[in-house]
Amino acid sequence: MKLVAIVSKPEKPELAQIVPGLMDWLRLRGYAVVIDSETANYVSAAADVIAREQLSSRNPELLVVLGGDGTLLSAARAVAPLPTSILGVNLGSLGFLTEVPIEDLYPTLAAVHAGDCEADDRSMLQAQLVREDRVLSEFHALNDVILSKSTIARLVSFEISINSEFVSSYRGDGLIVSTPTGSTAYSLAAGGPILTPSVDAIVISPICPHALTHRPVVVPDEVGIEIFVRNADDEAYLSIDGQIGIPVHQGDRLVCRKSPYLTHLLRLRKTFFEVLRTKLKWGQK
Amino acid sequence: MKLVAIVSKPEKPELAQIVPGLMDWLRLRGYAVVIDSETANYVSAAADVIAREQLSSRNPELLVVLGGDGTLLSAARAVAPLPTSILGVNLGSLGFLTEVPIEDLYPTLAAVHAGDCEADDRSMLQAQLVREDRVLSEFHALNDVILSKSTIARLVSFEISINSEFVSSYRGDGLIVSTPTGSTAYSLAAGGPILTPSVDAIVISPICPHALTHRPVVVPDEVGIEIFVRNADDEAYLSIDGQIGIPVHQGDRLVCRKSPYLTHLLRLRKTFFEVLRTKLKWGQK
Amino acid sequence: MKLVAIVSKPEKPELAQIVPGLMDWLRLRGYAVVIDSETANYVSAAADVIAREQLSSRNPELLVVLGGDGTLLSAARAVAPLPTSILGVNLGSLGFLTEVPIEDLYPTLAAVHAGDCEADDRSMLQAQLVREDRVLSEFHALNDVILSKSTIARLVSFEISINSEFVSSYRGDGLIVSTPTGSTAYSLAAGGPILTPSVDAIVISPICPHALTHRPVVVPDEVGIEIFVRNADDEAYLSIDGQIGIPVHQGDRLVCRKSPYLTHLLRLRKTFFEVLRTKLKWGQK
Amino acid sequence: MKLVAIVSKPEKPELAQIVPGLMDWLRLRGYAVVIDSETANYVSAAADVIAREQLSSRNPELLVVLGGDGTLLSAARAVAPLPTSILGVNLGSLGFLTEVPIEDLYPTLAAVHAGDCEADDRSMLQAQLVREDRVLSEFHALNDVILSKSTIARLVSFEISINSEFVSSYRGDGLIVSTPTGSTAYSLAAGGPILTPSVDAIVISPICPHALTHRPVVVPDEVGIEIFVRNADDEAYLSIDGQIGIPVHQGDRLVCRKSPYLTHLLRLRKTFFEVLRTKLKWGQK
Repeated sequence: MKLVAIVSKPEKPELAQIVPGLMDWLRLRGYAVVIDSETANYVSAAADVIAREQLSSRNPELLVVLGGDGTLLSAARAVAPLPTSILGVNLGSLGFLTEVPIEDLYPTLAAVHAGDCEADDRSMLQAQLVREDRVLSEFHALNDVILSKSTIARLVSFEISINSEFVSSYRGDGLIVSTPTGSTAYSLAAGGPILTPSVDAIVISPICPHALTHRPVVVPDEVGIEIFVRNADDEAYLSIDGQIGIPVHQGDRLVCRKSPYLTHLLRLRKTFFEVLRTKLKWGQK
Repeated sequence: MKLVAIVSKPEKPELAQIVPGLMDWLRLRGYAVVIDSETANYVSAAADVIAREQLSSRNPELLVVLGGDGTLLSAARAVAPLPTSILGVNLGSLGFLTEVPIEDLYPTLAAVHAGDCEADDRSMLQAQLVREDRVLSEFHALNDVILSKSTIARLVSFEISINSEFVSSYRGDGLIVSTPTGSTAYSLAAGGPILTPSVDAIVISPICPHALTHRPVVVPDEVGIEIFVRNADDEAYLSIDGQIGIPVHQGDRLVCRKSPYLTHLLRLRKTFFEVLRTKLKWGQK
Repeated sequence: MKLVAIVSKPEKPELAQIVPGLMDWLRLRGYAVVIDSETANYVSAAADVIAREQLSSRNPELLVVLGGDGTLLSAARAVAPLPTSILGVNLGSLGFLTEVPIEDLYPTLAAVHAGDCEADDRSMLQAQLVREDRVLSEFHALNDVILSKSTIARLVSFEISINSEFVSSYRGDGLIVSTPTGSTAYSLAAGGPILTPSVDAIVISPICPHALTHRPVVVPDEVGIEIFVRNADDEAYLSIDGQIGIPVHQGDRLVCRKSPYLTHLLRLRKTFFEVLRTKLKWGQK
Repeated sequence: MKLVAIVSKPEKPELAQIVPGLMDWLRLRGYAVVIDSETANYVSAAADVIAREQLSSRNPELLVVLGGDGTLLSAARAVAPLPTSILGVNLGSLGFLTEVPIEDLYPTLAAVHAGDCEADDRSMLQAQLVREDRVLSEFHALNDVILSKSTIARLVSFEISINSEFVSSYRGDGLIVSTPTGSTAYSLAAGGPILTPSVDAIVISPICPHALTHRPVVVPDEVGIEIFVRNADDEAYLSIDGQIGIPVHQGDRLVCRKSPYLTHLLRLRKTFFEVLRTKLKWGQK
């Protein structure tokens, strides 16, 4: 029996109307259903509940995200090692990753059930935090890996090398290493370019760099990117998809490369540029 | 007897060679000398020492800053209510505010002593943090008043009004309200324009705004600027000249206007554009 | 008898319905009416017609512009030396200068007739093209004075001085010297800041500068700005409000300063920031 | 006998000292030498001279460019269909494409002669100008394909489609379609990102776009890009590497895709990032 997981954004009372029906719909069609703890808040009956971080242990075939891009990013990381397809359903405003409006939930699921839609394989980034030659932690990001100054400090200083070749030293608010998928998120706000999802590249966007000549740099996605943190006075932070924050010390190194994992994003209606035009309010034809 | 104050950047061992000679030079010419605690570290003999924050109680005629722009910003705030002239001496690299190289210390002081140089009156910003209609704290900034997200939060949400007229709502890393003097500091890194010091204006530069249409806005310096913090999830921070940090809560208001105080900056050799060309490495004629 | 002038955008067939009624409305209220040649195309009866460039010889009290910002810019230059109030009526899409929608034409005119609205005095720029110390031509611009490369040339090279002080040399597509009013036009597209109309300043925005450190510069509006054209290979062009184009030679100088003239723009409903939010699609409260 | 071609920048008197010696050096080592007309100006003796545009008919093994990036761009287009290696020698200032200083001419040639250096294969763009479904002209660009407004017109209006999918409509000064190699040229001045040469991508950078939400877009280099020119009032221009200019009419289409040709650029000493740091004056380690 195939397993479908449901992951939800917390504090969305309207989900109390939606989730039980969605579970029934899936079970009626022969799926087993597992829900995360946030989704369990909307279900009064007994259900198979699992913490979001444990989702990969259950190997769902399909993951339905009810929320916004933030919820989907978190879910995507949770199932990164798996071939799970992800369906992003937004609860109001179109997301870059959650393009299906809640009104279209059932027609869309019907199409998925009928095998009528394909997954868009999105590349991810692997990031390692290395201290004194030990890998302290490792993450997989669908959008971006961010080095940023701590609140009080005005600047973080760092050096970038690509494939062990020195690129430049930087001072500023930080740095965003982004996948094509993440190029429309924080990197864009920091002045980075838009990459269509299928470009085999990574974009490196400095955040408010002190030197005015620094520009976003786009590199092939097979390179290794190393960021050496020189910052003397204060701590800096490593952030994964803008969601996980880890303090970074002077002398630490962040090593980023393409992840072996992919996010399998079901894409149904809109093309990349349709979503872009709507989200960025680009003038239509 | 006229009083000269000396303020120094900490942990600059070379100052041990410089400060005692500077004090002698000043006393020989009939000045009384008061030094801040950082400067006292470089002096073995007895000296008149005062905390930097207490400087204004002594009403010095001249303030000599040995350090960088950061040291001068802190000193300028300390004497903001006074007519004290400030001489900025850098210890290595040209600053926007500390343009005199240490080699030129004595010729420059001789010129100041001879009455041979004029002060450039720089406007300052007054910032009030208002919570539930109470002014919690008030600051005077020479460079800028900054609202910024806390480390983990991805965004701070706020609304700007100018002279009680709604301007727009914003989401992003934060906002910089800057004097012309501060326009070459953080605001410039965030994409703001350069204002020459004598423009009677304030520049409002969003930091990595979520909406791509937001741009820096330049307003007359007689307006009142109110920033209403809507941020729901996390705290944000108010920062003065990138040096003082105060947590800001949801619902707080930051009220910025031109300060009644001025910073009287002695300007000797270089014009504004000479400093700019050198600092920004603009191609020379 | 007070004189009202009507100036129209060419090739707008809907004006054939509007202009005769407008003329009647004005005459009924005791105004004499003069129309420009473009407007005359929409009027079958005899009318007092004058070329737009000759308008100032008739000294109208009020100038009604039917068209877009481009039509208003041209009309504003034509009456620049006069105290004429200008009412900008757009024929479809809100303009920065033509904020009154055609549906509101008569209620707005009634308010103007009743003395119920005030003019916003907008500063203008005076530009002189100087060749071998002779002033070849002089213009007054409401929006901007533009130096730009010719089509085939890749770059124009020039040097800027402000109050006879050398600022920097530039190479690039050109330069925009803009009033606050023009800051939301071409200068904004070139990366310049938004200036509210009442800032006493001029903004100098390079167009695609070769050196990445060049940034828009905001200067007080009492300065003199001189642009020396060094370009060796090709001609460059001077453009006034993006409408008048004059070839510029190597060695020419453009001298810009605040014009003694003002544009008296009737402003009725919307504030500057309301127009800005609508035009730039800024998120509303 | 292997053939070496020499191509020179015009009006560089110092080449009169260099070219004859260079020809001797090559002949001494058994190469036949052909020179372009510009180079012939520096040679008094008889020589095998050919117009630059005819170079490909001679199929040289090596092409030595004496000049700047502009000279190399023109030479690269001339030999685009061939496997010719290109050595770029600058006459003063480091170029992105002409990285060998003239002082290093002979040591570098010796290395090339010894087979000691490899060519960096740079992708090119193919651009077709299509009018009423007929291909009027076709070009191959090493840097960029540029659509730009004519001098007097303020704006060019166009629509972009990628792989026949509508992307957006644009109004502005124009558009740059750039290879990774060209990303450090005009596209960078227009706000585009830096692409390292080996990224399999094309960058599309609008020039001063009217809509503030437009951003540079990076697409895979296997796509087809079509630009439909809507511009009603004036002509626009198509430019290849900023050197060839062709008038473009309303209704024309520009079709860009990766060229089947490559430029084989000999790269000897410096890495891409070394050149970048030097050219952009990035702070060194």
